[in-house]
Formats: sequence, C-alpha cells, structure tokens
Amino acid sequence: MADTKKIAVIAGDGIGPEVVAEAIKVMKKTEELYGLSFEFEHGLFGGIAIDEKGTPLPQETLDMCKAADAVLLGAVGGPKWDNNPKELRPETGLLGIRKALGLFSNIRPAKIFDCLKDASTLKPEVLEGTDLIVVRELTGGIYFGDKFRREGANGEEAVDTCVYNVHEVERIVRQAFEIARTRRKKLASVDKANVLETSRLWREVVNRIAPEYPDVELEHVLVDNCAMQLLRRPASFDVIVTENMFGDILSDEAAMLTGSIGMLSSASLGEGAFGLYEPVHGSAPDIAGQGIANPIATILSVALMYRLTFGYHEAAQSIEDAVASVLDAGHRTADIATDRSKAVGTQQMGDLIVAAMK
Amino acid sequence: MADTKKIAVIAGDGIGPEVVAEAIKVMKKTEELYGLSFEFEHGLFGGIAIDEKGTPLPQETLDMCKAADAVLLGAVGGPKWDNNPKELRPETGLLGIRKALGLFSNIRPAKIFDCLKDASTLKPEVLEGTDLIVVRELTGGIYFGDKFRREGANGEEAVDTCVYNVHEVERIVRQAFEIARTRRKKLASVDKANVLETSRLWREVVNRIAPEYPDVELEHVLVDNCAMQLLRRPASFDVIVTENMFGDILSDEAAMLTGSIGMLSSASLGEGAFGLYEPVHGSAPDIAGQGIANPIATILSVALMYRLTFGYHEAAQSIEDAVASVLDAGHRTADIATDRSKAVGTQQMGDLIVAAMK
Ligand SMILES: [Mg+2]
Ligand SMILES: [Mg+2]
Repeated sequence: MADTKKIAVIAGDGIGPEVVAEAIKVMKKTEELYGLSFEFEHGLFGGIAIDEKGTPLPQETLDMCKAADAVLLGAVGGPKWDNNPKELRPETGLLGIRKALGLFSNIRPAKIFDCLKDASTLKPEVLEGTDLIVVRELTGGIYFGDKFRREGANGEEAVDTCVYNVHEVERIVRQAFEIARTRRKKLASVDKANVLETSRLWREVVNRIAPEYPDVELEHVLVDNCAMQLLRRPASFDVIVTENMFGDILSDEAAMLTGSIGMLSSASLGEGAFGLYEPVHGSAPDIAGQGIANPIATILSVALMYRLTFGYHEAAQSIEDAVASVLDAGHRTADIATDRSKAVGTQQMGDLIVAAMK
Repeated sequence: MADTKKIAVIAGDGIGPEVVAEAIKVMKKTEELYGLSFEFEHGLFGGIAIDEKGTPLPQETLDMCKAADAVLLGAVGGPKWDNNPKELRPETGLLGIRKALGLFSNIRPAKIFDCLKDASTLKPEVLEGTDLIVVRELTGGIYFGDKFRREGANGEEAVDTCVYNVHEVERIVRQAFEIARTRRKKLASVDKANVLETSRLWREVVNRIAPEYPDVELEHVLVDNCAMQLLRRPASFDVIVTENMFGDILSDEAAMLTGSIGMLSSASLGEGAFGLYEPVHGSAPDIAGQGIANPIATILSVALMYRLTFGYHEAAQSIEDAVASVLDAGHRTADIATDRSKAVGTQQMGDLIVAAMK
C-alpha cells in the first residue's frame, strides 16, 4: 500500500463541483485497484469563496493547499462576479494561488483520441499519433513586466516590458527536460532568438543545460515557425517548452488541434513534485447544476497528477485507457455528442469510466 | 489608356530573376488587355548588389524605388552571403529599403485555391471559402524596442521592450479598414488587451477610429484565441490587423492553412498608394537557374499591386482567374505537383497564365 497522499480539493464554481466529484470517484477506484491511498480535504475558492468568505482565496484554503501533496481544482468564475472590483474577482484568486504556491509552469497535454479525430479541423491522417505537451513559463515575460503610458517624441505611447532572468529559464527548462524523459524523449524549445534578447538568453540556457540530458533530443524552433509546424507535423512534437506569451498562444493552437477543449487536462507546477491540476475548460455557468457537463478533462487531470506529481504511471495509464475505451464504445457527453439525444450525463460518464478501469 | 506607371524591378537573388520575368510577362499582357501602361526600371538589390556594388542596397536602387509608383521584388539572399558581417547581408538590405521607403505594414493574403485544397492539413470543408488578409505592423513593437542584458536581483536578466505610439497604431488600423472596404468589409483586430498596455492602446485607437468606417464590421480577438479561430473558422475572417509580433506568428499560421507557401503573395505598404510587392517564398538557391521555380506567388503579387496601389481591380481579377484556371486544368510546377514528371517549368507556367488571361 502506497503512502497516503493529501489532496486539496477546490471544486470552485459552475460545473466545477460536478466534474470534480467524478474525478474523485476515479481516484477512489485507483485506491482499490492499485493500493493507492488518498485523503481529501475540501476548501472554498473562487466565486463561492467570495460569496461565503468575502475573498476569492481564503487563508484557510491556501493553508490547506500548502499542506497538501497536490491540488485538484474544478473551475472558477461566472457572470455573477464579472463586474466585481479586481480583488473580488475569481480570476484574482487563481493568480493569487499560483503565486502563493510558487507555481511557475503550466502544462497542457494535447492528445488525440482516435475516436474523436473527426472533431478536429485537421485531417485525421495528419493528426495520427499526435500526443504532445506544452510546458509554458507562467510567472515572467511580457505579461508581468512593467507596463505604462508615457509621452514620447510622437505623442502618447504605451510600453510593455519583457524580462527573464537565467534562474527563471533554467528551472522551467529543466522541468521540461525531466518531463520529456518520462515520455518520447524529444524536446522542442520555442523562442524568437533571431530577434529578441530574452529569447537569446532563453536559448543560451537551453543549450547549456542540454548536455545534462543526452538522452533527450533537442530542437530549437522559432515561434512563428512553430505556429506553422503544429499544423504541418503535429505528431512529431513530444514536449514543447516556451516562455509565457508564446506558450499562451501555442498551447491554445495545440488545444484546437484536438478539436475538443472539453477533454483537455492541465497542471501548474513549481519546484519539486507538488502541482495543481485542473481541466482547461472553464466553469460553464450556463450548464452548471444540470448534470450534463463533461467530466473527462478533470478525470484526465487526475491521470496527469498521477504521472507528474506521484509517478503513478500504471494507475494513470489505467485512467487514460478507461477514458479511451468508454469513448471507443460510443459514449459521449452532450458537448462531444453528434446525436445529443443519446448523450450521457456527468455522473453516468464518471461511472462508465470507473467501470472500465482495470 | 491609363497613365503610365513606373515599376521599379529588383529581381534579387536565387530564383528571383526567373519568377520576376514571368510576372512582367503577365503585366505586359494586362497592358494589352486593359489598356494599362507600365515603364519598367531594373535595379540591383540583395546578394547580387553586394557582389557588384559592395552593398545590398545601392543608392541608385533606392533612388529608383523612390521615384517609382510601385516596386516588384523577387527574392534576396543565399548561402554565399550568410556569413557576411551584418551590413553586408542581403536581409539588411530588405530592412533598409523598408525603412527608407517608409513602409510600415506587411500584407499577406491567404486564399485557398479550390484545386489545391488537398495540399492543406486542414479538412477541405473547413477551408471552403477561406480568403483572408493579415495586415501586420512592421516598424514597431517588441522587435524594434530597446533590448539589453543587466544584473537583476536574481542574477543576469534579459530585457525586451515593446512600444507603440498612437500614431503608429492609427495609420495601420486606418489602412486595414480601407482594405476591408474593398473586400468583404470585415475587420478582426487582434491584441492582448486583457494583459498588455500596448494592446490596450491599440484597442482604444481601433475603437476610436471604427465609427469612421460604419460599413466595416469590427471584431476584437485576443491573440491566443485568434490562433485557435484560424483553425476553427478560417473562412470567417476577411482582414486581420495586428501588431508586429502577433502578425509574424499569425501570418505564418494563416500561410500554413493554405498548404502551399509557394503560392503566397505579399505587399509592404506605407502612407499613400505606394507599395513593395514580393512573393512570400525565399530565393531558393538550391533550384535557382534551373527554370523550375513556381512563378505564381510573384504573379499574384502583381495582382495584389494592382488592387492595393493602382486600384486596377478588373485586371487583378483577370490575373487571379487565369491562375485559378491554369491550376484547375491540372498544370503544376514541381513544388506543387503530385506527379513531378508532369511538372511544367517556370516559363511554361508563366506562358500558360498569360494565355489564360481574358
Ligand atoms: Mg491562452
Ligand atoms: Mg514569421
């Protein structure tokens, strides 16, 4: 029997609680099947925390997350809080928790499920075998640099500053090399080193670290070329590592390759094994409470947690295989159904996946 | 008979002279068919100018361009000059000529030819009707801002600065609105206004100018979302306008949608009607002098010149229709041929297009 792992569960708003409930069912099934052991603690976060505690990120929730081995997050936000002042917006809680937990990377797998290939706008034969991960730096770059207005020689101007230091690049590049090692051992580092100084620093660091990972095949790709190559040869990528803004753009492009945002998992990582796991989709307030949300992205986030935080690769594989087999059997939630009248609900999808696990 | 227009022809290196020769044949045919009149002057530029004049952009070439109504450029560069010092590189000539001519936007159409739809990695039914233009700001933004290294609190760091002033945004946004007016009257302005100050300035200017173009339908799209939407609904875009780096990435993604870089035209524009027109593809030194290069991108650049600089829409349409009909008839240069043994050469492709013009 494995050590008991503490999971902080912050289900959040909208469909968050519904999809998280199914993910927990799946985790419990892996306790049974693989002798794993989890202790779940639940905390308020996002809009619901604003309503009940007057802040999107209550101190007790943060303390609970800090004491946990991993965090499972549902979704946050909704129209109810959209016009709140900044410190009372659910998204502010998200930024706050990432910062407080020292999470500096966002991990987004884009994997094609065979039976959902038709959902993509790309040709099935191009997508064949696509299984990539985008590792995006999350705390630096132009999104966080100084930004201001000033009077210039030609009138009003706006300025954004993009800054990266060696340490910031080094820690995420190392993380990406480590992840590549657990996969197909290929790393594509994306920059714009022919133009940008931050990219030249980025590439220097990558080239300095690369010899420590002789088993990983490294390629440097310019960001504009990468936007092309994702369309031309998606299956050739394994792990893509890049800075904050490039990662924002490329991870969304990669997500669209799959054709089904409702299926995509993600992780935010810091130093060490700790991570926060959540579906890429949002809180979908329009369908909240109806029992029709697709829980697969959250369930796949659990598989990602098992791989990246706990090294439970066998149990992760079991979850991923179960999802694939349920889809192969033709079961669909409404968001991915071609015939919505035959769609299964959130709980039914969770049950089907649990039943398919071996 | 129309006024005589002065065309500065800078054929450049590699396949440049071969493809430009076919474009000129096409222009001469439009003189015949539409009563147009051109005066061609030829100048040295790029690698050949380095070899013969010791500089990639000789003063007499620049003077010739300045005195012309439009510039037709083939391609520049090649391995011969790749290791030259910066001021003796062909690409430096390209930056220099854009600057000297006050060109601040780059225009890249991405149009799908029905008979080449299969060349794309996207599904034909998704691409159906795709005919968009990316208008990219070319002189500002992070590529041209201050860039440097410094010692920060956490060691060495690199900095890039992104700057835009109101005037720079205003002139390109106006240009994009004007171009949209000659087309399907839809403009998508791409920014990252939820994060960047330069993007907020950009969006303010767009919103201030928009009421002057009530006939043009405007949408704001965040850059990461645009990278997705180009894959999801490419045919819904007409004109996309954006800042330098976003345009660099998105125009390449849009180019890849078409599946055939060898077919893509481009323009660089400044204030007024003057423009520089060139194929997107490079000088292809590996096939230079063999008479097998595809002249269609350069020929379509002439059609773009007719539309954007001269307003010769009828003659432009004639060129575009002729290209489509020659492709529909199954003629292909080697780069786009499925059976290369049946491929036609550069001159033959030019002749076929000239013969198909009405
Ligand atoms: Mg994004
Ligand atoms: Mg580019």
